Amino acid sequence: MKATVLYGPRDVRFEERPTPKIEKPTDAVIRIAATCVCGSDLWPYRGLQPVNEPTPMGHEYCGIVEEVGSAVRSVKPGQFVIGSFAASDITCPHCRAGYQTSCANREWMLRAQAPVLRVPLADGTLVPTPGNPPADLIPSLLTTSDVLGTGWFAAAAAGVQPGQTVAVVGDGAVGLMGVLSAKQMGAERIIVMSRHATRQQLAREFGATDIVTERGDEGVARIKDLTQGVGVDSVLECVGTQESMLQSIRCTRPGGAMGYVGVPHGVELDGVELFFSHVHLHGGPAPVRQYLPHLIDLVWNRKINPGKVFDLTLPLEQVAEGYRAMDERRAIKTLLWP
Amino acid sequence: MKATVLYGPRDVRFEERPTPKIEKPTDAVIRIAATCVCGSDLWPYRGLQPVNEPTPMGHEYCGIVEEVGSAVRSVKPGQFVIGSFAASDITCPHCRAGYQTSCANREWMLRAQAPVLRVPLADGTLVPTPGNPPADLIPSLLTTSDVLGTGWFAAAAAGVQPGQTVAVVGDGAVGLMGVLSAKQMGAERIIVMSRHATRQQLAREFGATDIVTERGDEGVARIKDLTQGVGVDSVLECVGTQESMLQSIRCTRPGGAMGYVGVPHGVELDGVELFFSHVHLHGGPAPVRQYLPHLIDLVWNRKINPGKVFDLTLPLEQVAEGYRAMDERRAIKTLLWP
Repeated sequence: MKATVLYGPRDVRFEERPTPKIEKPTDAVIRIAATCVCGSDLWPYRGLQPVNEPTPMGHEYCGIVEEVGSAVRSVKPGQFVIGSFAASDITCPHCRAGYQTSCANREWMLRAQAPVLRVPLADGTLVPTPGNPPADLIPSLLTTSDVLGTGWFAAAAAGVQPGQTVAVVGDGAVGLMGVLSAKQMGAERIIVMSRHATRQQLAREFGATDIVTERGDEGVARIKDLTQGVGVDSVLECVGTQESMLQSIRCTRPGGAMGYVGVPHGVELDGVELFFSHVHLHGGPAPVRQYLPHLIDLVWNRKINPGKVFDLTLPLEQVAEGYRAMDERRAIKTLLWP
Repeated sequence: MKATVLYGPRDVRFEERPTPKIEKPTDAVIRIAATCVCGSDLWPYRGLQPVNEPTPMGHEYCGIVEEVGSAVRSVKPGQFVIGSFAASDITCPHCRAGYQTSCANREWMLRAQAPVLRVPLADGTLVPTPGNPPADLIPSLLTTSDVLGTGWFAAAAAGVQPGQTVAVVGDGAVGLMGVLSAKQMGAERIIVMSRHATRQQLAREFGATDIVTERGDEGVARIKDLTQGVGVDSVLECVGTQESMLQSIRCTRPGGAMGYVGVPHGVELDGVELFFSHVHLHGGPAPVRQYLPHLIDLVWNRKINPGKVFDLTLPLEQVAEGYRAMDERRAIKTLLWP
């Protein structure tokens, strides 16, 4: 098969790779129905994270089970399935506590921008949909694999409750899914920090009530203005830079909470500032597996339409253009059809 | 009157100072029944926090109201009262959210190691006891002003629930109060990190079930051993150094929580480590005012005996010896009688 490999900064190739096979009794092999490019793929693509050797890419996926190992019980060939970006056993203490991305046997998924994918720990990782989905649902189902699950975790980690005022820092795909998630959780007011007209528009469709275009201290001051000087109840940090983390903490009221899901790059938090902020912090790699059944249900019953976040759709063989468009911010998120 | 003034590292003097008076209509003046030396007083005492001018000391207090300003409604002369180490109005949005130590009109109390104290915002700061307390209750009542309230907040911020396994990092007075608090909140197993026999003994009296004498990575490994490799559900960070913060985060299970109340000194938290830890963080200056009614009730009804934390009692005029004994770790906490 041909699949996606990153050779170095801005050097994405679609080239011949061995077709994956069952390697362990707990594996499944699935034929990918759709995959996509993640904001986190852009860190190595931009050279901000080292790439020391040709690296297969992709960790968001859904598709049809082709084959399962002898120990697999909960999925079978022919089923349409979705899995998290991290394989998990769902039986270890961390999984049972709901933190499957800290599973004792965790394996990061790394080769999903391809037509065929081997999924380890299939019983703990894959969730079947109620049936074979209509084609128009596939983009939304695909989002549950990471980007929606991650936005959902940001809102959950920030403790979003009905009636609250919420800020979302980051207008990328995860931030936009954070808006949708906060709305689903009943937030009354959702303030999004964004300078991009198309993203502002989508944020409003997903439930944003206010847009703040200022950044840094000015952005914080604007949010304080919008909240009578108090700050927001919850903030969703969906970027992962020092500036975005500080901005998030500083716009939150004492006793409020920050859910942070942007993979941190160069972030160092000062103990004294954290201490006197009185802000709750929680975040990390989203335990998507915990949310998959609920999110699949919301999509399946057409209660949400997160697939709108894909504003560029390409055949998988044009994956390099998919990366380019996101790097240049011409696209929010690229969906790839094998 | 004579009161306590810090002139520089290890230079505590008990010297003539103006007797405080009502300055604003919202003030009260109280005659101190008992005060004490706080672990946080040792930072400037040891020269680890600059002292640029002679600085009156003390922020833990209880006593009898002598006089109130014309606007004070909730306390009156003759009442025995206790207040937080931070004055608050309890009407601003942060106070109403339970974070009185982030009150919009907060004033740190700074002159309580004295026979007489002016308390600003008396209506929002002071809580009367049900009556005039018997002398043997005064030490325990005094602890509610800061050290017990702070340990209580550490446990509350760490989300301690019945049946949980909890670690306490720090065997100072706050850590010991954290043990008592976690026990009150129903923790089943309370692991205390301590190398000092007398503190270990007191920790056991307050509810500790396990003592870990190792520190740093070895301490973390020991706690992991004690929890089948999983880590604790909640950790109370009661020191405030880089080592104690990291030790706390690292001994906590993914999805667990750290309550941190040690005033941070030189703490910088790495974003990547926090992210992958999956640990909830909450802390800051304890909103003691929130807990005062409940803690006074527990003491008044002799359900808890936190006053045991005072293992040295001196007349106020010997305050310098009180500091010395704590600095040299001859005493856990010094109570001072004016």
